[in-house]
Formats: sequence, structure tokens, C-alpha cells
Amino acid sequence: MTKTPLILVTNDDGINAPGIRALISVMNTIGDVVVVAPDSPQSGMGHAITLDSMLYAEQVFFDDGPQKEYSCSGTPADCVKIAIREILDRTPDLCVSGINHGSNSSINVIYSGTMSAAVEAGIEGIPAIGFSLLDYTWNANFEASKPFVKTIAQKVLKEGLPEGIVLNVNIPNVSKENIKGIKVSRQAKANWVEEFDKRKNPQGKDYYWLSGKFVNLDGGEDTDEWALENNYVSLVPIQFDLTAHYFLKELNTWNLNDIETNSA
Amino acid sequence: MTKTPLILVTNDDGINAPGIRALISVMNTIGDVVVVAPDSPQSGMGHAITLDSMLYAEQVFFDDGPQKEYSCSGTPADCVKIAIREILDRTPDLCVSGINHGSNSSINVIYSGTMSAAVEAGIEGIPAIGFSLLDYTWNANFEASKPFVKTIAQKVLKEGLPEGIVLNVNIPNVSKENIKGIKVSRQAKANWVEEFDKRKNPQGKDYYWLSGKFVNLDGGEDTDEWALENNYVSLVPIQFDLTAHYFLKELNTWNLNDIETNSA
Repeated sequence: MTKTPLILVTNDDGINAPGIRALISVMNTIGDVVVVAPDSPQSGMGHAITLDSMLYAEQVFFDDGPQKEYSCSGTPADCVKIAIREILDRTPDLCVSGINHGSNSSINVIYSGTMSAAVEAGIEGIPAIGFSLLDYTWNANFEASKPFVKTIAQKVLKEGLPEGIVLNVNIPNVSKENIKGIKVSRQAKANWVEEFDKRKNPQGKDYYWLSGKFVNLDGGEDTDEWALENNYVSLVPIQFDLTAHYFLKELNTWNLNDIETNSA
Repeated sequence: MTKTPLILVTNDDGINAPGIRALISVMNTIGDVVVVAPDSPQSGMGHAITLDSMLYAEQVFFDDGPQKEYSCSGTPADCVKIAIREILDRTPDLCVSGINHGSNSSINVIYSGTMSAAVEAGIEGIPAIGFSLLDYTWNANFEASKPFVKTIAQKVLKEGLPEGIVLNVNIPNVSKENIKGIKVSRQAKANWVEEFDKRKNPQGKDYYWLSGKFVNLDGGEDTDEWALENNYVSLVPIQFDLTAHYFLKELNTWNLNDIETNSA
């Protein structure tokens, strides 16, 4: 790429989160950076979009860096939409989201606002990467992540990504010397076993807090969970054509058109 | 199946929406029905979960039907989680979500609260189906949908679904006589071309309304969009392992472990 790449940066922890600040500092070494990120934390928002209320998006200034920044009242997916349609002069060469404070590996990708922003960019045909560090605290240290973030972003700028694919990158929370490298992985079969903490409000009405523990049911050594447990950065290519193509043929044997008439 | 199946019903338009009322009436002809649905509309919430506030879930009574119903202050995914962990005595044999007021075909599956509930059940190993009618109005007529909903639900109870797959069913908004049947389909490559309607608030600050038009870029006759345009009910098997397995090999040729050291 001969001209300076235009890089859109967003996240779901909010524009003032340390994780996006680290991501901006890395991207400033690669290209021209425009940040359009939520004005408040949006974690666990999944791929929400704002349909029934209005959005603000206004320029803000956080530091002396060369990037332009816009704070938006919407979700991560909204930020990408408004960036592309209203804020940027041209289609960006890359969209990066994160660095998330906390894991988006395995099934967490489904709930992830960080990844929903990357997917939204992918739908628009923009090469896109979501980055997450396995430390959910606000004071997480992103220094060890930076070389890996830069390496992957540069590779994507050089190689491109096929239509319909975005990258989900998770980084173990260990020092730089202890990270063994980057490992291309598949999404592990894992899930959350929720527990609801049931309490009574002052009026005596029951309410619940959601909590739970993460359970990896997948013994494979080619998964993102395995990579992370073994101190590798995991890199999973994900797709947003959700069709289970392999199951189409069997469904066609179901005689679905024997329609039940006594239906309610 | 010899014993009466236990069926969990949810949606994203809210527990009082006509679409879920229609779905309940069909499910009452098949099994024992427990409804756990949002107390208010949650459309466009994607796969959001409630992490940072508490949830209410309380029994409610809408009509004389045999179903048990619980109204929940959370998202569709929250409803499924709390149903499984706190409300139901045993794992349900089927989870159905909808009938959504409006399409969840093609890329809309990504943004869909209706489908996020089905996926949440699928993650728990419960056969699950999301149903949507291509009429977004509150007064949509669900009568023509009922025989197709019943047929598909019964087939799934009989055949089961493989681990990792849920069904996305969309129903054209035409009379029963004009529906040609059920067509197993793949997710069309389509997207939204958004337009932001920029306005000024009374204080002179810019704000935006999101609107847009749906564009089907996929000429295939095996897609859900084609099926719906031709008055078929579309049935797409979707998966929540998002890994683009076919691209793993190429990523391994990228020499990702030549790590960039000058990273910020």
C-alpha cells in the first residue's frame, strides 16, 4: 500500500478506556487514525443497533495525538455505521476495535460489542479486527499487547481479508516475555454456566444478579482457549454468514411440506 | 416422544406482543408451555446480556390459556438464561422465539434479539427455532403463519437438531393460500445501506436518526431472500461456531510470528 492507510478505531468499553487509548497509540504508528467510539461503556451489548432513539456524535479531544476523535451516544455497531456514512471522507482501509478489557474468546464472541463493531465493518467490506486482553480491570496493562496488535494490523493491511471474514484476536494477560507468539485457532466449544443470585428488594420483591462460570468443554489443542491457556495470542477468523451449509442437505429430507393444518 | 414436550417460549418484542401470543397458541397444541419473555420491546438488541444491572422475573397472567408466563426485565438472551437456571424444573425439549414482528432474514440475523434467544438456547443444547413474519407492524396478522410454525416445531421435536445448530424461520406476509411452502435456504449476502437523518436539537446541537434501505446483493435462488420474495417460508440452519474454518490454513502462511517490536 503506497498511500497512508486510513484506520477507523472503535471499541465497546467507551472512548476514554485505557484499552482504546493503547490501540490508538499503536495505530498512529501505522496510518491516519479516526476514532469513533461510544461515549459510555457498552460491554455485553452484542450486536445491538439503535433503532428507536437518536444518536449524538461529536468531535472530542483527549490528548496531543494526531488522531481525530468522535464520541458517539450509540452502540459499537452504531459507531461504525455513523463513521462510514457521516464522519469519514472515504472508506477506511482497516477497522480495529478494542483493545477490550476482558476476553472475547470462544463463545464470548457472540456477546461481544468489540466484535460486533468489527463485524459491522466486515459487512461493509472493510478489513476488520477485534482485539481483547484477558484482563477485565480498568487498570489493565496493555503494553505487552502492542507489538502483537501492530503485527496483526500490518499483516491485514498487507494481505487483506476475504469477503465475509473478520479476525478475533485475544491476548493472554502475561508479560511480553511470556507470550509465546500468535496462534491461528478455531473458536473453542465452551459456554457459561450461569448462576443467578436471587435477592429481595426493599419492597420484598425478588430480583436477580447474573453471574456464572466459564466452562471449556473442548479438549482440542487447536482452539483459542488452548492457545490462551498456553500463553499464545489467539487469532480466530470469524464469519457472519451463519448458515450451517453442511446441514442443508439433511433438512431437505425432512418432508417439511407436509403442513400441519390443525395449528391453534 | 412419549411424554408431553416442555416448550420454552420467548421473543424480543415483549411478552404482550401479538406475535408471541400467536406462538403461544400454537405451542399449546403441542406441549406444556412456559413463557419467559421481556417485559418491554428489545428489538435490535442483538445478543445483549445484562451484566451490570439486576433483573426482575415475575409470574404474570394474560389469558385463560394453560401456559405459565413470566415477565422479565432483561434481554431475550437473559430470558432464556433465567428460564433455564431459575424458572423451569427441567431442561425444555424445545425453545421457540417470536413470532417476530419483522424480518430476521439474511444479515438481519446478526442484529436479531429473536434469534439471540434461540442461539442462547442452542448453546445450552436445547433444540431452538426463531420465527419471524415479514410485517413489522404491531397489528400484523399471524394466522397464515401458524400452520408453518406448528409443522416446523413438530419436525424439530421429532428429528432433533445437531449440536451447534438452530433454525431461523422467516414467513412472507401474504395470505395462507399464497404461501407456496417451506424452503430450506442459505443466508443471503445482503446488507443495509444506512442513511443518517441529521437534525439539530433545540439547543442547536447535531443529532442523527438511523434509517436505511435493505440491499440484496445475492442473485442465488437458494437464499432466504429469494424464498421470501417468491412467497416461500424460508428455513435457514444457523451455527454459532463462527470460525471460518476454510481460512485457517491460509492464515498459517502469513508468518504472523515475525513480531513488530516498534509498536507505539
